[in-house]
Amino acid sequence: MKTTSTSLLLAAATALAWAGTAFAQQAPKPETLIKWRQSAFQVVAWNSGRIKANLDGEYNKDQVIKSADVIAAIAGSGLGSLFPPGTETGKGWHDTTVKADLFANPAKVAQRSADFAKEANELLRIASSGDSAAVKDQFGKLQKTCKSCHDDFRNAN
Amino acid sequence: MKTTSTSLLLAAATALAWAGTAFAQQAPKPETLIKWRQSAFQVVAWNSGRIKANLDGEYNKDQVIKSADVIAAIAGSGLGSLFPPGTETGKGWHDTTVKADLFANPAKVAQRSADFAKEANELLRIASSGDSAAVKDQFGKLQKTCKSCHDDFRNAN
Repeated sequence: MKTTSTSLLLAAATALAWAGTAFAQQAPKPETLIKWRQSAFQVVAWNSGRIKANLDGEYNKDQVIKSADVIAAIAGSGLGSLFPPGTETGKGWHDTTVKADLFANPAKVAQRSADFAKEANELLRIASSGDSAAVKDQFGKLQKTCKSCHDDFRNAN
Repeated sequence: MKTTSTSLLLAAATALAWAGTAFAQQAPKPETLIKWRQSAFQVVAWNSGRIKANLDGEYNKDQVIKSADVIAAIAGSGLGSLFPPGTETGKGWHDTTVKADLFANPAKVAQRSADFAKEANELLRIASSGDSAAVKDQFGKLQKTCKSCHDDFRNAN
Protein backbone atom coordinates (compact mmCIF):
# COMPACT_ATOMS: atom_id res chain seq x y z
CA MET A 1 0.00 0.00 0.00
CA LYS A 2 1.02 3.59 -0.48
CA THR A 3 2.49 5.78 2.17
CA THR A 4 0.17 7.28 4.75
CA SER A 5 1.51 10.53 6.11
CA THR A 6 -0.87 11.36 8.90
CA SER A 7 -1.19 8.40 11.19
CA LEU A 8 -2.40 10.36 14.18
CA LEU A 9 -4.93 12.29 12.18
CA LEU A 10 -6.00 8.91 10.92
CA ALA A 11 -6.24 7.72 14.51
CA ALA A 12 -8.55 10.58 15.34
CA ALA A 13 -10.57 10.01 12.19
CA THR A 14 -10.83 6.32 12.95
CA ALA A 15 -11.97 7.00 16.48
CA LEU A 16 -14.62 9.27 15.05
CA ALA A 17 -15.53 6.66 12.46
CA TRP A 18 -16.10 4.05 15.14
CA ALA A 19 -18.02 6.59 17.19
CA GLY A 20 -20.09 7.69 14.21
CA THR A 21 -21.56 4.34 13.35
CA ALA A 22 -24.70 2.77 14.70
CA PHE A 23 -22.34 0.18 16.15
CA ALA A 24 -20.35 2.52 18.34
CA GLN A 25 -21.09 0.33 21.31
CA GLN A 26 -18.99 -2.32 19.58
CA ALA A 27 -15.93 -0.07 19.24
CA PRO A 28 -12.84 -2.00 20.32
CA LYS A 29 -11.75 -1.60 23.91
CA PRO A 30 -8.34 -0.04 24.64
CA GLU A 31 -6.92 -3.42 25.64
CA THR A 32 -8.06 -4.87 22.31
CA LEU A 33 -6.40 -2.06 20.37
CA ILE A 34 -3.18 -2.60 22.34
CA LYS A 35 -3.35 -6.33 21.64
CA TRP A 36 -3.82 -5.67 17.94
CA ARG A 37 -0.89 -3.26 17.70
CA GLN A 38 1.35 -5.64 19.63
CA SER A 39 0.27 -8.38 17.22
CA ALA A 40 0.92 -6.22 14.16
CA PHE A 41 4.49 -5.51 15.24
CA GLN A 42 5.03 -9.19 16.05
CA VAL A 43 3.99 -10.07 12.51
CA VAL A 44 6.47 -7.49 11.24
CA ALA A 45 9.12 -9.13 13.45
CA TRP A 46 8.30 -12.58 12.08
CA ASN A 47 8.64 -11.39 8.51
CA SER A 48 11.75 -9.32 9.20
CA GLY A 49 13.27 -12.46 10.70
CA ARG A 50 12.40 -14.44 7.58
CA ILE A 51 14.04 -11.86 5.35
CA LYS A 52 17.15 -11.85 7.52
CA ALA A 53 17.31 -15.66 7.47
CA ASN A 54 17.13 -15.55 3.67
CA LEU A 55 19.88 -12.95 3.48
CA ASP A 56 22.10 -14.83 5.92
CA GLY A 57 21.45 -18.28 4.46
CA GLU A 58 19.96 -19.69 1.27
CA TYR A 59 18.01 -16.99 -0.59
CA ASN A 60 14.42 -17.87 -1.52
CA LYS A 61 13.03 -15.08 -3.69
CA ASP A 62 9.40 -16.11 -3.21
CA GLN A 63 9.64 -16.18 0.57
CA VAL A 64 11.28 -12.75 0.63
CA ILE A 65 8.52 -11.33 -1.58
CA LYS A 66 5.83 -12.79 0.69
CA SER A 67 7.56 -11.37 3.76
CA ALA A 68 8.02 -7.94 2.20
CA ASP A 69 4.38 -7.95 1.11
CA VAL A 70 3.21 -8.54 4.68
CA ILE A 71 5.46 -5.80 6.08
CA ALA A 72 4.39 -3.32 3.40
CA ALA A 73 0.71 -4.08 3.94
CA ILE A 74 1.01 -3.57 7.71
CA ALA A 75 3.16 -0.46 7.32
CA GLY A 76 0.46 1.02 5.09
CA SER A 77 -2.50 -0.22 7.09
CA GLY A 78 -3.02 2.81 9.28
CA LEU A 79 -1.31 1.61 12.44
CA GLY A 80 -1.98 5.04 13.95
CA SER A 81 -5.58 3.99 14.43
CA LEU A 82 -4.33 1.52 17.05
CA PHE A 83 -2.82 4.33 19.15
CA PRO A 84 -5.81 6.52 20.02
CA PRO A 85 -5.99 8.63 23.17
CA GLY A 86 -6.78 6.34 26.06
CA THR A 87 -4.16 3.77 25.14
CA GLU A 88 -1.15 5.55 26.65
CA THR A 89 -1.12 2.84 29.30
CA GLY A 90 -2.81 -0.52 29.51
CA LYS A 91 -2.30 -4.18 28.81
CA GLY A 92 -2.80 -6.08 25.57
CA TRP A 93 -0.80 -9.32 25.44
CA HIS A 94 1.46 -7.51 27.90
CA ASP A 95 1.76 -3.98 29.31
CA THR A 96 2.13 -1.50 26.50
CA THR A 97 5.68 -0.29 25.89
CA VAL A 98 4.62 2.91 24.17
CA LYS A 99 6.09 6.17 25.45
CA ALA A 100 3.86 9.10 26.32
CA ASP A 101 5.95 11.09 23.80
CA LEU A 102 4.11 9.35 20.96
CA PHE A 103 0.83 10.97 21.92
CA ALA A 104 2.46 14.40 22.29
CA ASN A 105 4.25 14.49 18.93
CA PRO A 106 1.76 13.73 16.16
CA ALA A 107 3.79 15.37 13.39
CA LYS A 108 6.91 13.40 14.26
CA VAL A 109 4.93 10.17 14.53
CA ALA A 110 3.34 10.81 11.17
CA GLN A 111 6.78 11.31 9.63
CA ARG A 112 8.13 8.11 11.21
CA SER A 113 5.08 6.20 9.98
CA ALA A 114 5.48 7.61 6.47
CA ASP A 115 9.18 6.68 6.44
CA PHE A 116 8.33 3.11 7.51
CA ALA A 117 5.72 2.73 4.78
CA LYS A 118 7.97 4.28 2.13
CA GLU A 119 10.92 1.98 2.84
CA ALA A 120 8.64 -1.06 3.15
CA ASN A 121 7.05 -0.35 -0.23
CA GLU A 122 10.50 0.07 -1.75
CA LEU A 123 11.61 -3.25 -0.25
CA LEU A 124 8.61 -4.98 -1.79
CA ARG A 125 9.43 -3.42 -5.17
CA ILE A 126 13.06 -4.49 -4.98
CA ALA A 127 12.23 -7.98 -3.69
CA SER A 128 10.45 -8.76 -6.94
CA SER A 129 13.78 -8.44 -8.74
CA GLY A 130 15.32 -11.29 -6.75
CA ASP A 131 18.53 -9.24 -6.38
CA SER A 132 19.57 -10.26 -2.88
CA ALA A 133 22.29 -7.61 -2.59
CA ALA A 134 19.78 -4.87 -3.38
CA VAL A 135 17.30 -6.44 -0.97
CA LYS A 136 19.94 -6.47 1.76
CA ASP A 137 20.66 -2.78 1.23
CA GLN A 138 17.00 -1.82 1.27
CA PHE A 139 16.27 -4.08 4.25
CA GLY A 140 18.90 -2.12 6.15
CA LYS A 141 17.10 1.12 5.29
CA LEU A 142 13.83 -0.36 6.48
CA GLN A 143 15.34 -1.51 9.76
CA LYS A 144 16.62 2.02 10.39
CA THR A 145 13.04 3.28 10.27
CA CYS A 146 12.05 0.64 12.82
CA LYS A 147 14.91 1.62 15.11
CA SER A 148 14.31 5.37 14.89
CA CYS A 149 10.69 4.93 15.90
CA HIS A 150 11.55 2.49 18.68
CA ASP A 151 14.23 4.86 20.00
CA ASP A 152 11.76 7.74 20.14
CA PHE A 153 8.52 6.09 21.11
CA ARG A 154 9.03 2.67 22.69
CA ASN A 155 10.25 1.83 26.15
CA ALA A 156 12.53 -1.14 26.57
CA ASN A 157 10.61 -4.32 27.33
CA MET B 1 -0.06 -12.36 -2.96
CA LYS B 2 -1.05 -15.35 -4.97
CA THR B 3 -2.56 -18.50 -3.61
CA THR B 4 -0.28 -20.98 -1.92
CA SER B 5 -1.65 -24.49 -2.13
CA THR B 6 0.77 -26.44 -0.01
CA SER B 7 1.07 -24.82 3.35
CA LEU B 8 2.27 -27.90 5.16
CA LEU B 9 4.81 -28.73 2.52
CA LEU B 10 5.89 -25.14 2.91
CA ALA B 11 6.09 -25.68 6.64
CA ALA B 12 8.40 -28.60 6.15
CA ALA B 13 10.44 -26.69 3.60
CA THR B 14 10.69 -23.73 5.93
CA ALA B 15 11.79 -25.91 8.80
CA LEU B 16 14.47 -27.31 6.53
CA ALA B 17 15.38 -23.80 5.40
CA TRP B 18 15.92 -22.70 8.98
CA ALA B 19 17.82 -25.89 9.70
CA GLY B 20 19.92 -25.56 6.57
CA THR B 21 21.44 -22.19 7.29
CA ALA B 22 24.54 -21.38 9.22
CA PHE B 23 22.18 -19.71 11.64
CA ALA B 24 20.19 -22.79 12.52
CA GLN B 25 20.91 -22.19 16.16
CA GLN B 26 18.83 -19.04 15.80
CA ALA B 27 15.77 -20.91 14.48
CA PRO B 28 12.68 -19.66 16.28
CA LYS B 29 11.57 -21.61 19.32
CA PRO B 30 8.15 -23.33 19.28
CA GLU B 31 6.73 -20.72 21.65
CA THR B 32 7.89 -17.96 19.32
CA LEU B 33 6.24 -19.63 16.32
CA ILE B 34 3.02 -20.02 18.31
CA LYS B 35 3.18 -16.35 19.33
CA TRP B 36 3.67 -15.32 15.72
CA ARG B 37 0.75 -17.38 14.43
CA GLN B 38 -1.51 -16.08 17.19
CA SER B 39 -0.41 -12.57 16.24
CA ALA B 40 -1.05 -13.13 12.54
CA PHE B 41 -4.62 -14.26 13.18
CA GLN B 42 -5.18 -11.31 15.53
CA VAL B 43 -4.11 -8.95 12.75
CA VAL B 44 -6.58 -10.71 10.46
CA ALA B 45 -9.25 -10.22 13.15
CA TRP B 46 -8.42 -6.51 13.45
CA ASN B 47 -8.74 -6.00 9.71
CA SER B 48 -11.85 -8.15 9.41
CA GLY B 49 -13.38 -5.99 12.13
CA ARG B 50 -12.49 -2.84 10.22
CA ILE B 51 -14.14 -4.16 7.07
CA LYS B 52 -17.26 -5.14 9.00
CA ALA B 53 -17.40 -1.69 10.62
CA ASN B 54 -17.21 -0.11 7.16
CA LEU B 55 -19.96 -2.35 5.83
CA ASP B 56 -22.20 -1.73 8.84
CA GLY B 57 -21.52 2.01 9.06
CA GLU B 58 -20.02 4.67 6.82
CA TYR B 59 -18.05 3.08 3.98
CA ASN B 60 -14.47 4.26 3.54
CA LYS B 61 -13.06 2.72 0.37
CA ASP B 62 -9.44 3.43 1.27
CA GLN B 63 -9.70 1.81 4.70
CA VAL B 64 -11.33 -1.29 3.22
CA ILE B 65 -8.56 -1.59 0.64
CA LYS B 66 -5.88 -1.28 3.33
CA SER B 67 -7.64 -3.92 5.44
CA ALA B 68 -8.08 -6.30 2.52
CA ASP B 69 -4.44 -5.81 1.59
CA VAL B 70 -3.29 -6.86 5.05
CA ILE B 71 -5.54 -9.93 5.09
CA ALA B 72 -4.45 -11.00 1.59
CA ALA B 73 -0.77 -10.55 2.44
CA ILE B 74 -1.10 -12.66 5.59
CA ALA B 75 -3.24 -15.29 3.85
CA GLY B 76 -0.52 -15.64 1.21
CA SER B 77 2.41 -15.40 3.58
CA GLY B 78 2.93 -19.09 4.21
CA LEU B 79 1.20 -19.42 7.56
CA GLY B 80 1.85 -23.15 7.41
CA SER B 81 5.46 -22.43 8.31
CA LEU B 82 4.20 -21.36 11.75
CA PHE B 83 2.68 -24.81 12.38
CA PRO B 84 5.67 -27.16 12.22
CA PRO B 85 5.84 -30.44 14.11
CA GLY B 86 6.61 -29.66 17.72
CA THR B 87 3.99 -26.94 18.01
CA GLU B 88 0.97 -29.20 18.57
CA THR B 89 0.94 -27.95 22.13
CA GLY B 90 2.61 -25.03 23.82
CA LYS B 91 2.10 -21.44 24.81
CA GLY B 92 2.61 -18.31 22.73
CA TRP B 93 0.62 -15.35 24.04
CA HIS B 94 -1.67 -18.05 25.44
CA ASP B 95 -1.97 -21.83 25.15
CA THR B 96 -2.33 -22.82 21.53
CA THR B 97 -5.87 -23.64 20.43
CA VAL B 98 -4.79 -25.75 17.47
CA LYS B 99 -6.28 -29.24 17.18
CA ALA B 100 -4.04 -32.25 16.67
CA ASP B 101 -6.10 -32.93 13.53
CA LEU B 102 -4.25 -30.11 11.74
CA PHE B 103 -0.97 -32.00 11.91
CA ALA B 104 -2.61 -35.23 10.72
CA ASN B 105 -4.37 -33.83 7.65
CA PRO B 106 -1.86 -31.91 5.51
CA ALA B 107 -3.86 -32.16 2.30
CA LYS B 108 -7.00 -30.78 3.94
CA VAL B 109 -5.03 -28.00 5.62
CA ALA B 110 -3.42 -27.07 2.31
CA GLN B 111 -6.85 -26.85 0.70
CA ARG B 112 -8.21 -24.69 3.53
CA SER B 113 -5.18 -22.43 3.28
CA ALA B 114 -5.55 -22.13 -0.49
CA ASP B 115 -9.25 -21.29 -0.12
CA PHE B 116 -8.42 -18.58 2.41
CA ALA B 117 -5.79 -17.02 0.15
CA LYS B 118 -8.04 -17.24 -2.93
CA GLU B 119 -10.97 -15.48 -1.29
CA ALA B 120 -8.71 -12.89 0.34
CA ASN B 121 -7.10 -12.03 -2.99
CA GLU B 122 -10.53 -11.75 -4.56
CA LEU B 123 -11.66 -9.42 -1.76
CA LEU B 124 -8.65 -7.19 -2.36
CA ARG B 125 -9.45 -7.09 -6.08
CA ILE B 126 -13.09 -6.20 -5.46
CA ALA B 127 -12.27 -3.64 -2.76
CA SER B 128 -10.48 -1.51 -5.32
CA SER B 129 -13.80 -1.01 -7.10
CA GLY B 130 -15.35 0.67 -4.07
CA ASP B 131 -18.55 -1.33 -4.65
CA SER B 132 -19.62 -1.94 -1.05
CA ALA B 133 -22.32 -4.45 -1.98
CA ALA B 134 -19.81 -6.58 -3.89
CA VAL B 135 -17.34 -6.24 -1.01
CA LYS B 136 -20.00 -7.42 1.43
CA ASP B 137 -20.72 -10.48 -0.69
CA GLN B 138 -17.05 -11.36 -1.05
CA PHE B 139 -16.34 -10.66 2.62
CA GLY B 140 -18.99 -13.25 3.45
CA LYS B 141 -17.18 -15.78 1.27
CA LEU B 142 -13.91 -14.98 3.00
CA GLN B 143 -15.44 -15.40 6.44
CA LYS B 144 -16.73 -18.84 5.45
CA THR B 145 -13.15 -19.93 4.79
CA CYS B 146 -12.16 -18.68 8.26
CA LYS B 147 -15.03 -20.58 9.85
CA SER B 148 -14.43 -23.84 8.01
CA CYS B 149 -10.81 -23.91 9.12
CA HIS B 150 -11.70 -22.94 12.69
CA ASP B 151 -14.36 -25.65 12.81
CA ASP B 152 -11.90 -28.28 11.68
CA PHE B 153 -8.67 -27.25 13.30
CA ARG B 154 -9.20 -24.86 16.21
CA ASN B 155 -10.44 -25.64 19.70
CA ALA B 156 -12.74 -23.14 21.35
CA ASN B 157 -10.84 -20.61 23.45
